[in-house]
Amino acid sequence: MKLGRLNHIGVATPSIAYSVAYYREVMGAVEVSEPFDMASQGVKVCFVDTPNGGTQIELIEPLSEASPIHGFLEKNPLGGQHHVCFEVPDIAAARDWFEGLGKRILGPTRIGAHGTPIFFLHPKDMMGVLTEIMETPREGH
Amino acid sequence: MKLGRLNHIGVATPSIAYSVAYYREVMGAVEVSEPFDMASQGVKVCFVDTPNGGTQIELIEPLSEASPIHGFLEKNPLGGQHHVCFEVPDIAAARDWFEGLGKRILGPTRIGAHGTPIFFLHPKDMMGVLTEIMETPREGH
Repeated sequence: MKLGRLNHIGVATPSIAYSVAYYREVMGAVEVSEPFDMASQGVKVCFVDTPNGGTQIELIEPLSEASPIHGFLEKNPLGGQHHVCFEVPDIAAARDWFEGLGKRILGPTRIGAHGTPIFFLHPKDMMGVLTEIMETPREGH
Repeated sequence: MKLGRLNHIGVATPSIAYSVAYYREVMGAVEVSEPFDMASQGVKVCFVDTPNGGTQIELIEPLSEASPIHGFLEKNPLGGQHHVCFEVPDIAAARDWFEGLGKRILGPTRIGAHGTPIFFLHPKDMMGVLTEIMETPREGH
């Protein structure tokens, strides 16, 4: 495998509304997407663009106590860095690669916030970093 | 202030040698800098480039138990996401901006791993994210 683009870093927050105000008013963000629910993942999601084609910040807020990031926020009530996401050209080949290395994959491959297939790898197998792998969006995505 | 480029994400590791092997052999990284000591900050540092001009990964390993990331690794022995770093055109103006907002700045402005002035902001004032602000390297840096 060849390292792909660092598509986004996932930042958990107790409130996307509050985070969006923070990124706009404190950090000076200009391009912020409309938040949307990803009910299948139990999260509300919003993207903050960084300039010069840089890596995006994905804000994630739990939709309920059943959300996978609910526990993270119990430990980190202010929010914090949750995961990193790298692009790959072929999600099935990437899954085979990590499985072949004995890395624990968290659940099935599914459609992520950018509309392309994704999966997550266990942080304990990834030097402490919860790692998302996503298929690169094609033109038009 | 206007949001600047997301220059790098800082990832703490108990061993840069092991992390470099991981990024090369598991993640397929190609461009990895030579590690170097920043004795003034108590850390060994190494940069992993991500493709398409993306945000770098800054690997940081403590040089001693007095290192500011020693405590982080006690809590997270495998390593993990430690900070994010945004560029600004003028470090003094940025410092004034955050001071004016009442954000706690951690220590003096000093020279960072890219050779330009930097400072850190307290994660409790930054929605749980330890945030580094660095002056954009000029051409030739």
